[in-house]
Amino acid sequence: LASSALPRPVARVIDEFARLPGVGNKTASRLAFHLLRADREQARALAAALAGLADGIVTCSRCCNIAEADPCPVCADPAREPSVVCVVEEPLDVLAIERTGTYRGLFHVLHGAISPVDGITPADLRIRELILRLQSEPIREIILATNPSLEGDATAMYIERSVRALPDEGIRITRLARGLPIGGDIEYADEITLARALEGRRDV
Amino acid sequence: LASSALPRPVARVIDEFARLPGVGNKTASRLAFHLLRADREQARALAAALAGLADGIVTCSRCCNIAEADPCPVCADPAREPSVVCVVEEPLDVLAIERTGTYRGLFHVLHGAISPVDGITPADLRIRELILRLQSEPIREIILATNPSLEGDATAMYIERSVRALPDEGIRITRLARGLPIGGDIEYADEITLARALEGRRDV
Repeated sequence: LASSALPRPVARVIDEFARLPGVGNKTASRLAFHLLRADREQARALAAALAGLADGIVTCSRCCNIAEADPCPVCADPAREPSVVCVVEEPLDVLAIERTGTYRGLFHVLHGAISPVDGITPADLRIRELILRLQSEPIREIILATNPSLEGDATAMYIERSVRALPDEGIRITRLARGLPIGGDIEYADEITLARALEGRRDV
Repeated sequence: LASSALPRPVARVIDEFARLPGVGNKTASRLAFHLLRADREQARALAAALAGLADGIVTCSRCCNIAEADPCPVCADPAREPSVVCVVEEPLDVLAIERTGTYRGLFHVLHGAISPVDGITPADLRIRELILRLQSEPIREIILATNPSLEGDATAMYIERSVRALPDEGIRITRLARGLPIGGDIEYADEITLARALEGRRDV
């Protein structure tokens, strides 16, 4: 907290900004002074948005995505194909795949990936919920669309083994084609690359 | 506004973050989802800090720095040397010079630098207030501590000419020694470099 000689309200904003991931003290200062100089409305609008960030946000009981209603709009849409489920790590990944405009199935959001280094185990992810869906919904294919990273691959492999262990066989398990740059994040992929990866998905 | 498929409260936070300078849509999304996942207290604390950002913040009527009282703590301190005034562009520059621990004079904050490209003229800065101080306070030296940039140099030159044009001669005008990296910002300088630049200041 490097801002003790500043007026306390300004120091407080700098300290709170600096708690955000990837925001250092210098960036935090720049942002605070920008808001202090800018139209007072801008700081108020950001404050109001943050205060309401979690207002009415629920987790869809079917796909575990964040939404304003349960079921979420995708799960509630009768035009979506309920026999295909695309498994992703984060809500932003759903957004990236929706932007391709080529996917008509449902989703399942894990809210993370297995990462022993960060202490994230399968029990911390929504994998149990996925297994329950496989046992209660008419799902014929799951697309493992975890990130092409160490953690994403470990998570996909764990899910594949869990599904293969189910008594009822016949569920197709696919992964996105490796057109994706390794080590990257799905949400950073452009629409065309991501659409190609969906089309070229392979059986595991 | 790339976030239309997200819950509105989340999209709103992303859009507001993305209005900040240097924050793109991807960074804004990362910050919003970080806060959504983190302890709810963190988003609330940032919201409260932002809502109170300008609470009780005044401009010191003497040095034009932002403060919680008028006069500000520096101007109100009888131990400060009132005959020396250090002229800076921004409140963060005051902080940087205070951190050297070697300066005992007063300050004058211009709140910017002359920049024709950005439409900032001398009339937009607190230069008139500085001239009035020179005519009413026992000031023997002004240190022009504007940034070592095109805009900072133009501002220093403008102030120098304005002071030289005053009828009462005898005010010493100095600039920080050029140990500062050209093109940089005063607030990024380390304490030792900045202390040396203060010691080695030269007559203009």
